[in-house]
Order: sequence, then structure tokens, then C-alpha cells
Amino acid sequence: MASTPESLTPQPSRLEHDLTELARIRNPESGGWTRTVFSEPYRASREWIRSRMVDAGLEVHTDGAGNVVGVRHGRRPGAPSLITGSHTDTVESGGRFDGAVGVLGALELVRQLTEHDVVLERDLLVVDFLGEESNDFGLSCLGSRALAGELTAADLDRRDHEGMRLGDRYAAFGLDPAGVPGAGWARSRPLHGYVELHIEQGPLLEERGTPIGVVTAIAGIERLLARFDGRPDHAGTMPMGDRRDALVAAAEAVLAVRREGCGAPVHGVATTSRLVSEPGSPNVVPGAVRMHAEIRSVDTTWLSAATRRLAEEIRARAAGYGVDVDVEWSTDNAPVPASGEVHEVVSAAADALGIAWEPVPSGATHDAVHMARLCPMGMIFVPSRGGRSHCPDEWSELEHIVTGVQVLGATLLDMDRREMTAGSSS
Amino acid sequence: MASTPESLTPQPSRLEHDLTELARIRNPESGGWTRTVFSEPYRASREWIRSRMVDAGLEVHTDGAGNVVGVRHGRRPGAPSLITGSHTDTVESGGRFDGAVGVLGALELVRQLTEHDVVLERDLLVVDFLGEESNDFGLSCLGSRALAGELTAADLDRRDHEGMRLGDRYAAFGLDPAGVPGAGWARSRPLHGYVELHIEQGPLLEERGTPIGVVTAIAGIERLLARFDGRPDHAGTMPMGDRRDALVAAAEAVLAVRREGCGAPVHGVATTSRLVSEPGSPNVVPGAVRMHAEIRSVDTTWLSAATRRLAEEIRARAAGYGVDVDVEWSTDNAPVPASGEVHEVVSAAADALGIAWEPVPSGATHDAVHMARLCPMGMIFVPSRGGRSHCPDEWSELEHIVTGVQVLGATLLDMDRREMTAGSSS
Repeated sequence: MASTPESLTPQPSRLEHDLTELARIRNPESGGWTRTVFSEPYRASREWIRSRMVDAGLEVHTDGAGNVVGVRHGRRPGAPSLITGSHTDTVESGGRFDGAVGVLGALELVRQLTEHDVVLERDLLVVDFLGEESNDFGLSCLGSRALAGELTAADLDRRDHEGMRLGDRYAAFGLDPAGVPGAGWARSRPLHGYVELHIEQGPLLEERGTPIGVVTAIAGIERLLARFDGRPDHAGTMPMGDRRDALVAAAEAVLAVRREGCGAPVHGVATTSRLVSEPGSPNVVPGAVRMHAEIRSVDTTWLSAATRRLAEEIRARAAGYGVDVDVEWSTDNAPVPASGEVHEVVSAAADALGIAWEPVPSGATHDAVHMARLCPMGMIFVPSRGGRSHCPDEWSELEHIVTGVQVLGATLLDMDRREMTAGSSS
Repeated sequence: MASTPESLTPQPSRLEHDLTELARIRNPESGGWTRTVFSEPYRASREWIRSRMVDAGLEVHTDGAGNVVGVRHGRRPGAPSLITGSHTDTVESGGRFDGAVGVLGALELVRQLTEHDVVLERDLLVVDFLGEESNDFGLSCLGSRALAGELTAADLDRRDHEGMRLGDRYAAFGLDPAGVPGAGWARSRPLHGYVELHIEQGPLLEERGTPIGVVTAIAGIERLLARFDGRPDHAGTMPMGDRRDALVAAAEAVLAVRREGCGAPVHGVATTSRLVSEPGSPNVVPGAVRMHAEIRSVDTTWLSAATRRLAEEIRARAAGYGVDVDVEWSTDNAPVPASGEVHEVVSAAADALGIAWEPVPSGATHDAVHMARLCPMGMIFVPSRGGRSHCPDEWSELEHIVTGVQVLGATLLDMDRREMTAGSSS
């Protein structure tokens, strides 16, 4: 039987049912939909995903990195595998679509393949990656990071706000922490290409009325920790001109961060997420402030120039208030371009299906950042209502999700038959 | 024996010894010098003050408001009393002079009076007022406030950060809370005049090289609580132009508060002491911010206009970022002018002693604010090194403190013999 992209038509009701069932599994004591990594609701959602994978005919195992992996065997056992997936953990008070769409969409695709008796050339792996969202350990994408060989033994000693080691969290979750740092797939499992379906989490597609975004690159993140050191003084008696007010200097920095983001030429955003001032007493001029900010862009050149400009401006403005400032930048991740070849395959698949698409950047980080270390990577975005995400308001239309699964299916069918020039190939 | 101001020469070594002894009594687990209200070190310091009062020949009792009161009887038992004093509690990590100078200086003055066989016409009360500094209950000047009849039964239900009632704190400290609201002196004890010796806590006297400040007025305080209501968004995906960033709006407000303080015509200061932003997560645009600020001035007209201008500017700037803001002002206290008559007596006393002085405002609140409800009030300031206060660096030269005690003595001697036109008189 011929397997054409057109013949793979995801069933909206089945996909909706899965989204609804998964959404039932959540922490009842938190707002929105909450399944944070290592929590009991997350354990339950992974169990449910396992059973849905089995129902879809996949051969399921949990790998050494804690990822739930479902395998659909292809015709050529030794050939590098196709891989797709996303995550089912959420942020605190998150939504129903971030991550879930990529895992449940892939499952619906697998069911379609089977119902149409499609046997691929290559193994197709569907992965529910462990703990993609930011966590207390300061280490997002736990599962894909480990697959890329980027989670070290030292990382297991990181501690959360309760003082518990990351390694001990793995163990309490029923995973062997000793195996995590060595769980990289680079040698053990050759991969042909990774494609992830995800909600956009931004407003661009909705604003333009386009159902599909083909990701060009995932933004790099530079994180800023600025420590302002002024002088605490009596707020009633120290004249304005004699003060060294750390909070005033930090307020100038917040506005400088915003201006830098507004001036970005391509996709660039800059955010101050937190200020903590001391002593915080109503009668005292703040003597010290810690400021947490970040800038993101797909443009490495801009990122690098922006960090330099911002550090200079923050220091200069603080000096004008007699405030010293220690500016510390750390690279969370560098910008990661999608594979040009995967980008072409996705675009061509959408074109062949008569589905409008446009190239979009990803401002959020995804497991795809780490999978790009192992093989050619691409991502497919569907619109987010109002661009809202990481909140209970997060919403994507079922119609758009179904379209995304169609494009994912057509993409994987094409990649299955094609030799990829970049990354590991057969 | 004639009692002339010149003959009352405080002994520097005795005053220094008392300051050193009091400074020994402090919370060893806190920085600087810490004797917060209702704490064990504070209990101990009050016991020590009692014994020093007794040593100085005062008749000591603790009044219904919890103040330690030492009485030196005068020639005319029914005549309205002279009263002086200050406080021995401190802020957390405070200094050795704020409050202590006024209590220990008054004690040295009493010893001088006795050594020179001076019998005053009127009773002289030396008071160590209960809990002058800001506390968790949001109610400074506990002792003087109660004397003025301004501490109500409802205030006793205020709770501190541990959830304990103010009334229960009184009881645990060995005071009867039931008596506090009725402890006002307005009817029970006529007062002739109140003069308080205190460190300036600001830099003006030091900058001008003047040893004595004669306080013209105590600044009023308007406190601001502004609640910024924006929208939490994904910091990577929401474009700059589509955000409603509550922290950016609050940063503009911090700068507006500063500008308002810098533009004050007379004595005016404006301070943002605290910003608390939510959710504070590194990937999220802050959706909500609470901002605590205050403005102070001796000028009622400016205070009132400044609160109105600031509210408008904060709202307008926030609106430019799509952020709503709820601006709430509350009057902590209105500006309190010193009695013109006491001001004249203090100035004349300094002149007679050949001591340079100048009129200064008080940016800080003092027990004198509440005592002004009961009788003519005046304050004498001595210089603070670098204007620093409420910190371990707080320092005033012994020489200046001794000069302050001299002026206090001359002032009280003059007031003792004079009929005051304002306030209660004999």
C-alpha cells in the first residue's frame, strides 16, 4: 500500500481525547496545569504516556537518561533512526499544550502509520523527554541534555531549594543516577534526523494568520546577574544628593535592558525577571540590589554586542549614582540554527499539503537544542492564542494542532526515504 | 547656690562610660548594636537604665505605657513638669548613639544639677520611651504615642511577622496591655515643655561645621504602596512591543520618586525602599510588582502636591507599558513644627554659652512628634559623622554630645523659670 502524506489524516477527536486525558493528570494544589519534573503527577503522566505508547503499538522502554522511548521498527534495522517527541512536564501553573502537543501529536501519527499499514525504512523513535522545563537545579532539558552527553556527574550534585541533590531526585523517582552522565546516544544509537512539533508560545503566527511555523533557529540565552553595591542610609535624613541608592541604579538598568531588547534588529528580547533589594526596610535607602535579567536572540553577533553594551551602560549609569556594580553574564545556550535540509523538507511537506507556513525563530528553548548535537534538527510550530504560554491561558486550536501533525507526518515520511547530507547518515 | 548654665559642665568621661556600658547590652547574634523592642537585650538595657536613674537620685517608675520614667522633684509640686528623654531601643544592626544620647545625656545633666545643688521650680522627668524605632507592627514610638493618647485598643491586635499580637508582646514583656490605651498623660500630668537631645542622623551639621542644630520641624511622612498589574509572559517568545511588563513600569516609578525628591524646594526626600516582583522566575516577564516608597518633608504643601504629582506620573508611565497601577498613599505623620518659644529658648541658651548653632529640619521621626501633642516641644541635634545612622557606622563625637548636654541643661534651666505661652502652663 502506498504511503503518501495525503493519506495520513490525524483524527482530531482522538488527539483531543488524549490532550484532555493528559490534562487530567496534574497537581491539584497548584493553579493551571502543573506537572513539574520529579513530582507525583509527573510520574503518573509518564505512566499514562507509556500505556498510550504501548496501545499505539510501540515498543517502550525508559532509557538511562530517564526518557520514555517508544520504538516503531522500520525495514532496515541498522539504519540511523528517525526521532520525534517533546515533553509532558510543565512549569508551575502552566498550560495544557506546551510539550504535550509534540508527544501526543507523534503518537497520533504513529497510529495513522499503522492504520495505513505504512512500514518505514528506518526505526521511528517517539520520545517523552525527561524534565524539559526550567527547574530549581538551573538545568532545563534534563533528558535531551543527557542524550547529547551534556549532563555531567558534577551536575548531579546540584541542589534544589530544599537542599536535595539532583542525583537523589533521580533516585527517588526510580531512576539510576549513576547511569545518567553516560546515557549519551552519540555512539550507541545513530540518528537520521529529529523533528519536534511544538506550540509557538509567541504571537507571530496568530498575528499573521499562518497555521504553520517552520523554525529557522532557536534563540541563544545570555543570563545576567548584576549586583549593585550602594550604601544603606536613613531614608528621612540623608539628602537626595548624598545618597548611593542601589535600587535607583538598578531601576536605570531595568530600563536599559528593555531598550536593548527593543533595539534588536532581528529576533531579540531582553527581560529583567527579578530584583531583590536590601535591606527592604521602609525607613532605609536600599544599599544592595541583585538583578536577574536575560537577553535572547537567534543572532550570535547581536547577543555578543548587546551583552557588552548593556554591561557598559549599567556600570556607567550606576556610577552616576555612586553605586558600584558587578555585572556577570553567563551563556545558557548559544543560538542553534535548525538544519537547512530539515527546514527544506518541512517547508516542501507543507507546500505539498497546500498548507501555508512561514519561517519563524524560536524564542524559547526546546529539547531540539540538545538533539541538534546528535543529528539534523528541525521544529514545526503551531499558533498560540495571544502568544500566551507557561500560564493557564495557554491555548492552541485543535485544528492547528492537527495540521501540525499532518506536516510532521509528511516530513518524517520524506526524511525516511532521503539520505541526509548533514549529521550522522546511513 | 546660684544655678547658671555655665556652671553645669557635663563630665565627658562619665558620659562616655555610660555610652560604652549601654553599648555592651546588645543581641550578640545580630550585627552592630541591636536592642529591638520587646527583645531580651532591650529588657536588660531598660533594667540598666533604671539602675543608672536610681544612682542619679531619680525616683523611678514604669508608667502604664511601658516608659521608664525618672522623676527629680522640684520646689513647686503642682507645677507642670519639664520633661526630657529619648529611647534606648535600636533598629536591627543599628548604632550606639541614636536614642542613647538623649537618655544618657539627660542622666548626666541630672547628676550635674545635683552636684551643683540646683533645685528646680518644677519636677523634671527623664524618660526612656518604650520602642521608638519602627517595628513589625507598623507602629513606631510605642511609648510616646501612648502618652499622647494615640495608641488604641485596636492597635493591640496588630500582629508581627510571627503572627503574635502587639498586646501579647506587651504582656510577655511584663507590661499590662489593658492599661496601655488609657495611659495618656493629657489630663493626669500637666507638662510645661519637652526638649529632646538627639543625633542628627543626617550630614548637614557636619558639612557646615556647626556643633548644634536647633530643630525647626519634624518631617511628615507619606507612605506609598503601588501595585503594578501587568501580564506574565514567556520571556523568550513575547516580542518587546506586545509585553505588559510590570517591572519596567515600576522601574520608571522608582526614577520618578527620586526626581520628585530631588525637586523638593525645602527639606524633602523621596525613597523607594522595596520592590517585590512576581513571579520572579528567570523565563517569565514580571506580571505584578508591589512597590513601597515614601516621601518626607517639613512642608505640608509640598508633601500634598508631591503625592498628587507622583501618583499621576506613575499611572501615566505605567499606562504607556500597558500596565495598570493602583496607587495608595497613607499619612504616617503630618509635619510637626517645633514650638517657636522652645526654639527661641534653645537658641538663646546656645548663644549665651557661645556655642554656634543653626536651624535644621528633622527628616527622621522622634518621640518628640507625639510629645508635641502634650506640650511645647523642641529638639537639639548634634552632628552625625557622614550623616550615617541606623547602621554600625553611626558615630557622634563625644565633644559634640557634651556640648549638646550643655545646651539641653541651659534650655531646661531657662524654661523652668519661664511661663510658656503655648501648650499647658502653670
